[in-house]
Amino acid sequence: MSEPVNKFNKEVGRTMVSGFQAGAAASGLKKNGDLDLGLIYSQSPAAVAGVFTTNQVQAAPVKITRERIKSGICHAIVANSGCANCCTGEQGMTDAADMAKTAAAALNISEDSVLVASTGVIGRPLDVAKIEAAMPALISSLSPDGWPDCARAIMTTDTVPKRVTRHISLGGASCSITGIAKGAGMIRPDMATMLCFVCTDAGAAPETLQQLLETANNQSFNRITIDGDTSTNDTVLLMANGSSGVVIEDQAAVDRFQEVLNGLLLSLAKMIVKDGEGATKFIEIAVTGADSPEAGKTVADTVANSSLVKTALFGEDANWGRIMAAIGRSGVTVRPAAIDIYFDRVKIVENGRGAGAEAEAAAAGVIREPEFRITIGLNLGSYSARAWTCDFSIDYVKINADYRT
Amino acid sequence: MSEPVNKFNKEVGRTMVSGFQAGAAASGLKKNGDLDLGLIYSQSPAAVAGVFTTNQVQAAPVKITRERIKSGICHAIVANSGCANCCTGEQGMTDAADMAKTAAAALNISEDSVLVASTGVIGRPLDVAKIEAAMPALISSLSPDGWPDCARAIMTTDTVPKRVTRHISLGGASCSITGIAKGAGMIRPDMATMLCFVCTDAGAAPETLQQLLETANNQSFNRITIDGDTSTNDTVLLMANGSSGVVIEDQAAVDRFQEVLNGLLLSLAKMIVKDGEGATKFIEIAVTGADSPEAGKTVADTVANSSLVKTALFGEDANWGRIMAAIGRSGVTVRPAAIDIYFDRVKIVENGRGAGAEAEAAAAGVIREPEFRITIGLNLGSYSARAWTCDFSIDYVKINADYRT
Repeated sequence: MSEPVNKFNKEVGRTMVSGFQAGAAASGLKKNGDLDLGLIYSQSPAAVAGVFTTNQVQAAPVKITRERIKSGICHAIVANSGCANCCTGEQGMTDAADMAKTAAAALNISEDSVLVASTGVIGRPLDVAKIEAAMPALISSLSPDGWPDCARAIMTTDTVPKRVTRHISLGGASCSITGIAKGAGMIRPDMATMLCFVCTDAGAAPETLQQLLETANNQSFNRITIDGDTSTNDTVLLMANGSSGVVIEDQAAVDRFQEVLNGLLLSLAKMIVKDGEGATKFIEIAVTGADSPEAGKTVADTVANSSLVKTALFGEDANWGRIMAAIGRSGVTVRPAAIDIYFDRVKIVENGRGAGAEAEAAAAGVIREPEFRITIGLNLGSYSARAWTCDFSIDYVKINADYRT
Repeated sequence: MSEPVNKFNKEVGRTMVSGFQAGAAASGLKKNGDLDLGLIYSQSPAAVAGVFTTNQVQAAPVKITRERIKSGICHAIVANSGCANCCTGEQGMTDAADMAKTAAAALNISEDSVLVASTGVIGRPLDVAKIEAAMPALISSLSPDGWPDCARAIMTTDTVPKRVTRHISLGGASCSITGIAKGAGMIRPDMATMLCFVCTDAGAAPETLQQLLETANNQSFNRITIDGDTSTNDTVLLMANGSSGVVIEDQAAVDRFQEVLNGLLLSLAKMIVKDGEGATKFIEIAVTGADSPEAGKTVADTVANSSLVKTALFGEDANWGRIMAAIGRSGVTVRPAAIDIYFDRVKIVENGRGAGAEAEAAAAGVIREPEFRITIGLNLGSYSARAWTCDFSIDYVKINADYRT
C-alpha cells in the first residue's frame, strides 16, 4: 500500500512498522456509532507471545487466544469494544470463534492464526452478525498507517487513544515496535479489559518473544492500579514478523530489545493510569530499603490501592497517617519507627513520626501538583519497587455507579 | 449510686450492668466542644479480655493496653476521641501512660489496672493536659446509667452512638452484658479506630473471657468491611466483674454466654456498617457451597471489598458481571460455570451466566431497597460464610477527601 500524502505524513512515518497493517470499523456494537472493531494484520505469519488476566472468570476470547498462541504463530488480531463476551457460556465460545473465522475468511488466512480480543460489559451476548456485516469495511480500512483508528476502535471509557512507537538500531540495521492499548484491567474493570497489542518488524522465536513480553509486562502493566479489580479480559499480545531483517537472537540484541520494549509498555501503562476513570492526579509510589523485591512490591501496591490514601490525594490532603496505616496492614514485616516518607523531595515522615509543620506546609504544595512521587523508605534492606496509581475522585464513583444504565 | 428517677428510667433499667459505671466529659480534644472523653469503671477489679488491630503500625494506647491485659485484670477503661495518639513515638507512649495514670489517681486505683484507648487523626500528639484538666468532670459524671454519654464520647465521624444490652438467665440467676462501639476500623480508618467496650456482671476467668471474645469477634467485627483499610487503633475489650453472682464456668454457661455475646457483637458490628461513611445501603454477602470455611470467607470478603461492586450498589445497578469478576480474582479456586448469584430471592446468575431479562428486572427492584442480601452459590462444597458491607458513595469520597482540613 502506498503511503498517503497528507498532513499526517509525519505521524505515519513515526508509527509505521514494516509488514504490518491496521484498520478499524464501526459495526454498531457501540450504540453511538463510534469505531468498535480493530484489525491488525501481518503480511506474513508472525511469531507471537501473550500474557492474560489471572482472573479465573475469563472471557471467551481470552480462552481461545490463550489456546491459539501455543502454536507461536499469529497472522492477524481482531478485537471489538462494546461487549466483553464474558460469562456467555458455550455460545460465547462459538461467537468468539466465529469472529475469528469471519476475519480469516476475508483475509484468506488460516482460522487458527487469527487471535481475538473483546472489551465491554460482562454478561451480554456478542452480536457476531454485526461483526460479520462490518468485515468488508474493516478489511478495506487496513493500512500501514491505520494505527490511530485501530487504537480508537478498542477504546471504551478511555478519553484518549493510547499509542507508542519506538525505533531500535541493532548492528547497523533498524527495526520498529508500535503498541496500542486501552485502559481497563484494574483501572476500568467494568469495561472489563486492559487490552494491548504490540507489533514489531524484528524477528524472534516465540519463546524469546514470550520471555521479553513477560519481563516487560511485569514492570509495567503489572505495576499499575486504580482499584485492584482485575478484569476478566486483560490481554497483551506481542507480534514479531521479521520483515525489517533484524533478528532478536543473541544476548546483546535481546537486552537492547528488552530495554526498549520495557520503556514502550511502561509508557502505555502510565497513559492508562493518567486516563483512569475520574483521575485528576498521577502518582508514583516508590518504595526503597525493602528486604526483598516482593516486599517492596507488596508495600507499593497496598499504598497504591488504598481507598483512603487515594481519596486523600484527591482532596489534596498530605495525610501521611493513612500511608503509614496502609504500610502497616500490607502483610510485609516492617519497623514502623524506621519509616521515612517523602512527597517528591519533602520529607514528611521521619523515623515513623511527622516531620513537623514546615514539612507539612511544603508537602501541601507538592500534593497540589497533577503529578508527583511518594517515596517510602522502609530502611530494612536494599530492594526497591515502584507502582503507579491515580487519585480516587467523586467522578470515579459517578462513572461506576452509572455505567450500565 | 441510686438510680435517678426520670424519663430515662426505662432505658436505665435496660442498660445497667451491676457494679459498672460509665461517664463522659468534654476536654476540648474535639474542637467543637463535643464529648471526647469516656470512662468505664468497675466497682471491683474485673477479669478482662481484648482483641486488637493486626496492623503493624499500632497506636501507643494499643501497645499499652495489649501489655496490661496480660494480667487478666482491669479496673477501668479511659478512652478519648479526636486524637489517635499513633505515630507519635516515645512521647506518645508517655502520653498514653499519663492518661491512665491521671484516671488511676482520681479513682484511687492501681495504674496498671487502667486500660486506655484513643481514636482520631494519626500523627498528632495527644494533649494530655486537656485530659488532666477534664478528669474531675469525667469522674463526677460516672453513673450506672452513663452509657449513652460514654458511647457518644468515643464517636468520631459516627452519626449515631452505638449501644446494645442483653440479659441472660443462667440456672435461675440472671446477668447482663452491655456494649458500646464506634465505627472505624475498616470503615472509618482515618479516624483510625473501631473501638468497642463490652461489660458484663457475670464472672469468668480471663482465659475463658478471651476465648469467648475471640469467637464472637471472628464472626462479627472481623466480618464487616467498608474499604479494607484496617486501622492502627482497633480495640475490643470485654470486662467481667462477677457482681451478678453468675459465673461463666461450666460448658452450658459458656455456650449460652457465647451465643448472647455473639449476637451482641454482631448487632454492634452491623450498626457500624449501617453508619459507614457515606453509606446509603446495607448489604449482606452470603456465600454458600464453598469447599472450606476459609474459601467462603475469602470470596465473601473480596466481593464485599470490591470498589466496583460497591459503586454499582450505590448506583442501584444489579451489575452481576462485577460480582463474577470479583469472585474470579479472589484467589479461591472456583468453577465459574457452576456459580449462581441471587439478589434476595431473585436468581440473577445461573451456572455462571445471566438468568435473563425477567431476572434482571426483578433484581433491579431488590437493589433499590436500603437493605438486602446477595447470595453467591459456589456449588463446590458444603461450607458457607457471610460478610456485611455498605455501598461506596460520592459522600464517601467527599468525607475522606476533606477529612483533616
